[in-house]
Amino acid sequence: MPDPGLPADAVARLRLIRSENIGPITFFQLIARFGSAQAAIDAIPDLAARGGGRAPRLVPKSQIEREMEEVERLGARYLFLGQPPYPPLLAELEAAPPALIVKGHVALLDRPAVAIVGARNASAAACRYARQLAQTLGAAGPVIVSGLARGIDTAAHDGAIDSGTIGVIAGGIDIFYPPENEARQRAIAERGLLVAEQAPGVEPRARHFPYRNRIIAGLALGTVVVEAAPRSGSLITARYAAEFGREVMAVPGSPLDPRAQGCNQLIREGATLIQSAEDVLEAIEPGQIRPFRQPERGFAPPEVSADAEQRQRELVIGLLSVTAVPVDELIRQSDLPSPIVQTVLLELELAGRLERHAGGKVSLAA
Amino acid sequence: MPDPGLPADAVARLRLIRSENIGPITFFQLIARFGSAQAAIDAIPDLAARGGGRAPRLVPKSQIEREMEEVERLGARYLFLGQPPYPPLLAELEAAPPALIVKGHVALLDRPAVAIVGARNASAAACRYARQLAQTLGAAGPVIVSGLARGIDTAAHDGAIDSGTIGVIAGGIDIFYPPENEARQRAIAERGLLVAEQAPGVEPRARHFPYRNRIIAGLALGTVVVEAAPRSGSLITARYAAEFGREVMAVPGSPLDPRAQGCNQLIREGATLIQSAEDVLEAIEPGQIRPFRQPERGFAPPEVSADAEQRQRELVIGLLSVTAVPVDELIRQSDLPSPIVQTVLLELELAGRLERHAGGKVSLAA
Repeated sequence: MPDPGLPADAVARLRLIRSENIGPITFFQLIARFGSAQAAIDAIPDLAARGGGRAPRLVPKSQIEREMEEVERLGARYLFLGQPPYPPLLAELEAAPPALIVKGHVALLDRPAVAIVGARNASAAACRYARQLAQTLGAAGPVIVSGLARGIDTAAHDGAIDSGTIGVIAGGIDIFYPPENEARQRAIAERGLLVAEQAPGVEPRARHFPYRNRIIAGLALGTVVVEAAPRSGSLITARYAAEFGREVMAVPGSPLDPRAQGCNQLIREGATLIQSAEDVLEAIEPGQIRPFRQPERGFAPPEVSADAEQRQRELVIGLLSVTAVPVDELIRQSDLPSPIVQTVLLELELAGRLERHAGGKVSLAA
Repeated sequence: MPDPGLPADAVARLRLIRSENIGPITFFQLIARFGSAQAAIDAIPDLAARGGGRAPRLVPKSQIEREMEEVERLGARYLFLGQPPYPPLLAELEAAPPALIVKGHVALLDRPAVAIVGARNASAAACRYARQLAQTLGAAGPVIVSGLARGIDTAAHDGAIDSGTIGVIAGGIDIFYPPENEARQRAIAERGLLVAEQAPGVEPRARHFPYRNRIIAGLALGTVVVEAAPRSGSLITARYAAEFGREVMAVPGSPLDPRAQGCNQLIREGATLIQSAEDVLEAIEPGQIRPFRQPERGFAPPEVSADAEQRQRELVIGLLSVTAVPVDELIRQSDLPSPIVQTVLLELELAGRLERHAGGKVSLAA
């Protein structure tokens, strides 16, 4: 029996999302340009041809139907962007996941959330601190979000297992990672909520971890980092939180402790220094949070439906190189209307000739 | 042979400074009101009578002459406010010491200075950190100022003994405190500079330590706190630094370490988090420092010489209570000219009927 909460075009949407080279931003642009997922699917071959390449091989309908059966069999369900109970704070992200697969207590998404993340090789003292912080904080109200990694993440989930915790995993919802956390992952699916962006059966790969980190930061009003070395994954989560306009918080440590350097650096850059759960609650009071997008993104019909002329296409391509440039810069330099430039970029991307980068930048595929 | 650098009225100034109930602010107001220390001395009995009390017993001239001989015998010298080489940054303070007694290399006062202070019962790791910080920082230019206390202060002086250090002591320049630091205090007088506000022979008392702390903060472009418990003396020095518009810096520590709580709290309140000497140098670059007073305070003749009428005196007294109020508030509420209000307060103070408090507040003596 299909989930009654599924949108009518769920299959078409998932066909786009699960296809290579179609990330969330491309997905939103396709929907905005063509009005529906099915219309986008129909238009892709033509678009890619105009971009001078072959269309990406779209995932067949049958594969999506198998995925949906598997999700149901696993006792999980989909959440689609634009449709409750998709978490509104996550919906604010420019690259919000168009669909999530969740298992457990979906009502946890209605409560304010705080992310607690940190080093996998954290000290015992820091793990104890994170567990107690999660416990005290959770008892005061917020759901605790983390990434189910070893060390701090594990401690945060454990501290909040009674009050409410959300575990965001990098692979499919049925893949236990790290393997030693299998019992913990099962417990979170039963007593908390497990969230995955990838399809069931997908083994987590290196590129999936930053995707997961953006979901952790995106679900939460603020992210607390407990022990993090410079250039660690936890700092990526903190950077996402800052980018999303959320509160960035860090627990300090002695400059003599290398595991404290990432947190100390975050504080130097403006993160709020956290000593206690009270400090976190003070930092995330609702008044302090500044939403920077609409809380729910709908699927409004595209404002402008623009077909690019060949000379416009050539003008944009001429401005591109393997060095990433902001799309805004391309619009300025080409002196073309924004929808035209976006259309050309979409065509190139679907033709496999364009790469998108962080910060709204694009380059020719190397 | 008297020091040729002494001002002509050095004896009269010291008679005022060394008298009870005449702190720096009262001293400056007397000079501003009467134009010279001697004129102030002559006016005090009459002023105190108008304030409704007996005049404070002024220190006799002979005692000051003995003090000056003792300073010379000790190989020390006076620095008077308003006259080089009195340190210009210290001269900015509203309650700058009208006179200092120094021993050692006075030229150190020409160099930019950074204060390093902290807990007496600091951990061994923190002491080592403070010593290395002082050494690295000193090698890069700044003179290191501290208070010769056990723990962090001692470590800071030791680290900077080769590059240049200034020790500010709470008692007389000939009093070794703490006693186990006698050799260190002698070494600083020989290789660095020792600074005292009190007369020779004065044993340090509890009230002298905040006075010393204001000099430490006042001499420096910024103050670094290394390990400090909440409500410790080091935090008083940091608060003075903030009040004087100087850079407040603190070395963080784990929330699990009680000795880190003071520093972490300072950082939460806006102090710059310090991990290394580079962080300190970046924080104190001259462009960052905002002087908020003239670099040198002269002894200009008073702008207004105001005698208060009895009804004005009664009006001000009527507004006072044992609860401290800002002087500005008294001026507003009395609707009297500022010099009149200041005159009445001075009379009351000299009569022993008024107390001055931090932040420009006054109250009736309890």
